[in-house]
Amino acid sequence: FVLHLLRTVPLSTASPPAVVRTLPPGFSSGLLQTPRPVSCGVHCRELHAGEERPTPSPTAAPERRPFSRVTPEDMAFFSKIIPGRTITDPDILEASNVDWLKSVRGFSEVLLRPQTTEEVSQILGYCNSRNLAVSPQGGNTGLVGGSVPVYDEIILSTALMNNVLNFDSVSGILSCQAGCVLENLSLYLEDSDYIMPLDLGAKGSCHIGGNVATNAGGLRLLRYGSLRGTVLGLEVVLADGRVLDCLATLRKDNTGYDLKQLFIGSEGTLGVITAVTILCPRKPKAVNVAFLGCESFEQLLQTFQLCRGMLGEILSAFEFLDRECMRLLNTHLKLANPITDCPFYIVIETSGSNPTHDEEKLHQFLEEAMTSSQVIDGTVATEEAKIKALWSLRERVTEALTHDGFTYKYDISLPVERIYQLVTDMREHLGDRAKSVVGYGHVGDGNLHLNITSPTKDPDLLASIEPFVYEWTARFQGSISAEHGLGLKKRNYIYYSKASLAVALMGNIKIMLDPKGILNPYKTLPDDLQ
Amino acid sequence: FVLHLLRTVPLSTASPPAVVRTLPPGFSSGLLQTPRPVSCGVHCRELHAGEERPTPSPTAAPERRPFSRVTPEDMAFFSKIIPGRTITDPDILEASNVDWLKSVRGFSEVLLRPQTTEEVSQILGYCNSRNLAVSPQGGNTGLVGGSVPVYDEIILSTALMNNVLNFDSVSGILSCQAGCVLENLSLYLEDSDYIMPLDLGAKGSCHIGGNVATNAGGLRLLRYGSLRGTVLGLEVVLADGRVLDCLATLRKDNTGYDLKQLFIGSEGTLGVITAVTILCPRKPKAVNVAFLGCESFEQLLQTFQLCRGMLGEILSAFEFLDRECMRLLNTHLKLANPITDCPFYIVIETSGSNPTHDEEKLHQFLEEAMTSSQVIDGTVATEEAKIKALWSLRERVTEALTHDGFTYKYDISLPVERIYQLVTDMREHLGDRAKSVVGYGHVGDGNLHLNITSPTKDPDLLASIEPFVYEWTARFQGSISAEHGLGLKKRNYIYYSKASLAVALMGNIKIMLDPKGILNPYKTLPDDLQ
Repeated sequence: FVLHLLRTVPLSTASPPAVVRTLPPGFSSGLLQTPRPVSCGVHCRELHAGEERPTPSPTAAPERRPFSRVTPEDMAFFSKIIPGRTITDPDILEASNVDWLKSVRGFSEVLLRPQTTEEVSQILGYCNSRNLAVSPQGGNTGLVGGSVPVYDEIILSTALMNNVLNFDSVSGILSCQAGCVLENLSLYLEDSDYIMPLDLGAKGSCHIGGNVATNAGGLRLLRYGSLRGTVLGLEVVLADGRVLDCLATLRKDNTGYDLKQLFIGSEGTLGVITAVTILCPRKPKAVNVAFLGCESFEQLLQTFQLCRGMLGEILSAFEFLDRECMRLLNTHLKLANPITDCPFYIVIETSGSNPTHDEEKLHQFLEEAMTSSQVIDGTVATEEAKIKALWSLRERVTEALTHDGFTYKYDISLPVERIYQLVTDMREHLGDRAKSVVGYGHVGDGNLHLNITSPTKDPDLLASIEPFVYEWTARFQGSISAEHGLGLKKRNYIYYSKASLAVALMGNIKIMLDPKGILNPYKTLPDDLQ
Repeated sequence: FVLHLLRTVPLSTASPPAVVRTLPPGFSSGLLQTPRPVSCGVHCRELHAGEERPTPSPTAAPERRPFSRVTPEDMAFFSKIIPGRTITDPDILEASNVDWLKSVRGFSEVLLRPQTTEEVSQILGYCNSRNLAVSPQGGNTGLVGGSVPVYDEIILSTALMNNVLNFDSVSGILSCQAGCVLENLSLYLEDSDYIMPLDLGAKGSCHIGGNVATNAGGLRLLRYGSLRGTVLGLEVVLADGRVLDCLATLRKDNTGYDLKQLFIGSEGTLGVITAVTILCPRKPKAVNVAFLGCESFEQLLQTFQLCRGMLGEILSAFEFLDRECMRLLNTHLKLANPITDCPFYIVIETSGSNPTHDEEKLHQFLEEAMTSSQVIDGTVATEEAKIKALWSLRERVTEALTHDGFTYKYDISLPVERIYQLVTDMREHLGDRAKSVVGYGHVGDGNLHLNITSPTKDPDLLASIEPFVYEWTARFQGSISAEHGLGLKKRNYIYYSKASLAVALMGNIKIMLDPKGILNPYKTLPDDLQ
């Protein structure tokens, strides 16, 4: 499972190729990053011992593939299929060409906004026959450059596919189009006393189809599990326009292979998700949030164990941030620390059906945690406003980071005992070359968000971070992408977390479902397969 | 998703083909069932209008495919790879050739018992090169004829692959070989205060690898979700002997397509699962069971809704059986009804972290249910012996049925409001042609077990049941196999629950992973694809 790359790939110090295309000021096509000498991923695998060849950065975009370019005839076809929803206005296109982090941009000149599955089917059928590449796009909130074109791919947006198709208030099963915004779905369910089984910082703009396509994790995974369990059905348009109807509304179905799983987490490379059915949990009658401080990460882990035992079935989140995160929240967002200054902070959320029982459990737990000195200070919220305020200390770390400088982001899965050791080791490894090295994330899921900032983009710093971070992760059988996906930025690092045979099979699946490779090219799969 | 078949397939009344092979007394190869005229599945799809051709039963085994036959040289190879574990003793083979229901038998003359993944890899690599068919077998407790050979396929048993590889008591992640018996794993976890996330009647003999290969549901799915969420990693040997290592021990991993999902529920047709990692929940500190009686299925559903609201996060099972089931339990197993005679009985289980809170919730719920007359009688158990006694009323229905005569078994997923209507309609439809028509199952999952008995095997009765039951299910967007899989018996009915394109893609996946089709042939996929 691990170390495949580390054992077999020689270090290369060859120089990077010259950038040949003319780019707008401040942007490079694909990644905003100067190619640099690296101990690279798969490229090097083809080098023979002793041979030297220019090695592109594993994160840089590969050469444009020989897809067709959009012609006036193509435009006429699109305008006929979706009149008034074939966008060429550069100002509107700008927002779809650049990712949320402003770290990746494409140069697409066409944005299509279908409203129905049939329209998506006609568009893809046409693009496939014309060999036109397509970049499917939901809310464009992804963090790995998976949601924007790399070159001139046609952007296929789900923004106008935003209807709820059905909600069954007995079973809690929701069916909706892929472009529904997560927060709108949450609001829709509120009336029926249900909630969405996932919640994330980007809820105000991310689309449910995009969530499924990236297998988003988020804040409720600890309690309600992953989308692999809660998504009951999908409707997907394949690369050639055929509509795959797996839109079941059943909790159980063992009739053949579970095809929908292929599309969950495939980042739009195998098909375009057009509709989703998802199992929603009942809205909890009581929610409490505790914000606690610990002296060490070991104490934090002890608190986690105690918490799982004493809060049991009502525990719905166990999140953490470190002192550095708190400093950034104070400095950049003027958010005050509600408790004593500590090296580590925990956000614990309980959700249950009986307010009295839940408060009793929480207080018993807190008493035990304080008595045993696992926790040195804390505050508890039961009213919505204070709950939101405490949650924002965790949810707004990402935002605070954007004010701290250029941010290198890593989303790592590790055995929970290890997650903070990576932050400590990285700090030591980088010394004063980095501005800030911060760690936060989902303790309950063993998921660390490691972020490193520097005043400006800094290729030397990046060269110190990568592949160090990936090698470290692989050494402990971790995943180099816990919940963000691979997109453009991480595609070539897949071998750090997946065996070569697994990656080769992924390539076979891609060829099976999208033989011309028109769907979200340059993403997810490493360049040696594409 | 539905009715594809119903709309397009003409009824056929052509006569069945003659049985040509000589069979042991009491057995027919494959299904123990006389071929009969039917409104068949996929076979008919190839007939042109007006054309008449003999139509085999969709459940009967197809012709033996041209696989090689085992030679003395093959035996010598196997004996060298796994000395002393290459079994040819007909008495030992008998138990592996016949399924648990004694409804299907094969004629394999070789049973292989590897101990390691490497041995499985060598065996499959050899069989693939020799074009020898292989029937992978776990505990042989399947109910659809998926776990035994149909002809002379080599039986590859996981029985000796029964080691726990690792258990991490911080994360609750268990790694083990595929042949571990489910109940043994539960006992193993007990010391560390964890439980397995699944539980089923066959726990004393089923293997975890078989559970994963059939995507077993069982009694805890309502609480802990399906194996698609709890299985974190798999090691699988592919048809050509290559070992696919996806044995991750992480709760989150978004690096590429989730290949392990292909093997979950694929019934050994895509690869042989050799090891599993699975996320185990903490052992609940308190378990309570209530056995209740209702006057109507509508009251039962109202009780379910009330229960979900009031018991919330501690509800771990909501199961039901009807009056007919209770009669069979009384008659055949001498189990007494602990409450008043009722048309419907419910088994409710709670599992939680605080005994006082749980009992309080349960009593509040019971008071409300009795006051509002949703429930007319009931009893509650908190001690283990009584809990087991109440559970056995639900768990032993299957056993009681085997004493009632020849049993036709259906495992149907439906919107929960509909599940009992199928039983009522079937009773009316069959009149006095059936001995008993009973319904029980997992209300919480919308999963009905419909069973119909007759004094002996009765082709006319079967012709009245099928395709009626499948058409009925398809009409309400149900699944014709909720948790049992398709195996040999249901393979040709897949079109009632899956769109043609979905089935065609399954065929592509099969060809991709097992181009010679040596793995568990004649199973899962319909004959028109194989």
